[in-house]
Amino acid sequence: MFSVIFAESSLELVPKKIQNHPSITAHAEKKQKSPNEILLDNSWHFAAMKGLKNEIKRGRPDIVHLCLLESCSIPLYFRNKIKVYVHTINDEIISISHNVRIPKSYHRFEGLIEKLFKEKVIKNNQKSLLQLQTMNFSKFIDKIKPKKVIGLSTEGNFNPYEKVVTLLNDNVCLVIGAFQKGHFSNLIKKKIDHLFCVDKHSLEAHVIVSRILYEYEKTIFM
Amino acid sequence: MFSVIFAESSLELVPKKIQNHPSITAHAEKKQKSPNEILLDNSWHFAAMKGLKNEIKRGRPDIVHLCLLESCSIPLYFRNKIKVYVHTINDEIISISHNVRIPKSYHRFEGLIEKLFKEKVIKNNQKSLLQLQTMNFSKFIDKIKPKKVIGLSTEGNFNPYEKVVTLLNDNVCLVIGAFQKGHFSNLIKKKIDHLFCVDKHSLEAHVIVSRILYEYEKTIFM
Repeated sequence: MFSVIFAESSLELVPKKIQNHPSITAHAEKKQKSPNEILLDNSWHFAAMKGLKNEIKRGRPDIVHLCLLESCSIPLYFRNKIKVYVHTINDEIISISHNVRIPKSYHRFEGLIEKLFKEKVIKNNQKSLLQLQTMNFSKFIDKIKPKKVIGLSTEGNFNPYEKVVTLLNDNVCLVIGAFQKGHFSNLIKKKIDHLFCVDKHSLEAHVIVSRILYEYEKTIFM
Repeated sequence: MFSVIFAESSLELVPKKIQNHPSITAHAEKKQKSPNEILLDNSWHFAAMKGLKNEIKRGRPDIVHLCLLESCSIPLYFRNKIKVYVHTINDEIISISHNVRIPKSYHRFEGLIEKLFKEKVIKNNQKSLLQLQTMNFSKFIDKIKPKKVIGLSTEGNFNPYEKVVTLLNDNVCLVIGAFQKGHFSNLIKKKIDHLFCVDKHSLEAHVIVSRILYEYEKTIFM
């Protein structure tokens, strides 16, 4: 089994500093929630987000949703061959247990994640499905102690999917950025042993996720 | 170039018959729209949908959204090597032009499709991006006159992705169901020349879409 970590993921509740902005309060009211209980979402809160620190890596829960669907709707996940984590832009780690059905409906996904941020854990019959803890990327890597950390980025050396998957053995970490623009910050890069660019085209994160996991699956199931 | 048609897709406005159901009116009010302007969505309208004809193939716009993202966020589409159509469960055909950016945010996608159902066309600078016309699957196939129609279904004969893509030449149609459960209706099947099952696992539509298009891409770009 190897681990997939979505790093610096654009997933967070609306930060305190902008909770009074009209675009936030109006949206919260529509959802019948309080502004501190809803996900920051660029498609609703664009006006409020202007000038927010690290703006290009924030407020895209849809990207995280897609990356999770690509990794948790496939045989590799169903058969417990990967462990999936989300590292957020605010240094939280979300652990996805095995056999979790990530809702395809965004509306249900959003509700689930908002609950997770509030309660820190989502359980079903005493079994924890999703768990959230505050921890930075570096500490998390030190905790799970992978043999090797492989990052995917257009900044890396070209090495196609089929070759990179041969490096994905037990206790290896595959790190993919779940954000809209930009590259890994130095805090992430310094924990990465090998940085590869797997595609000649610059593709969206969810496409890269589906392709690399599919290529890996082929090496073990077919 | 070949065509991808998502057949019997779970995409429609709330049907007249259930527009007065409390789960519909409450949701429409929340969205500040009228009940006849919003997409039927099982995750909101479950109670209203009980007993609706052909229920298992309806009210899953999220599935259609994912299938479109898988097919329109990839080099194959960017380079005009596929043409993408959505055939809906109510016999409408949506044509997706080239260079359309399908919104990753579900909320934006929903707004776009609701507008499309109302206005029948979405334009940008006089160029049509999405177009909707009333037409059944059979008539549509007769209109575009493909050389061959290939359907993917767990009911088909096993033939893996890598083999099926060798059949995808110019003027071939690839038909994939964009619905939650069940199989193609006989109306679809009678227009399909070859029905194949491409995966040993029963996978969700969006996973099949991403994998088959990726395998095809490899035959022409790599």
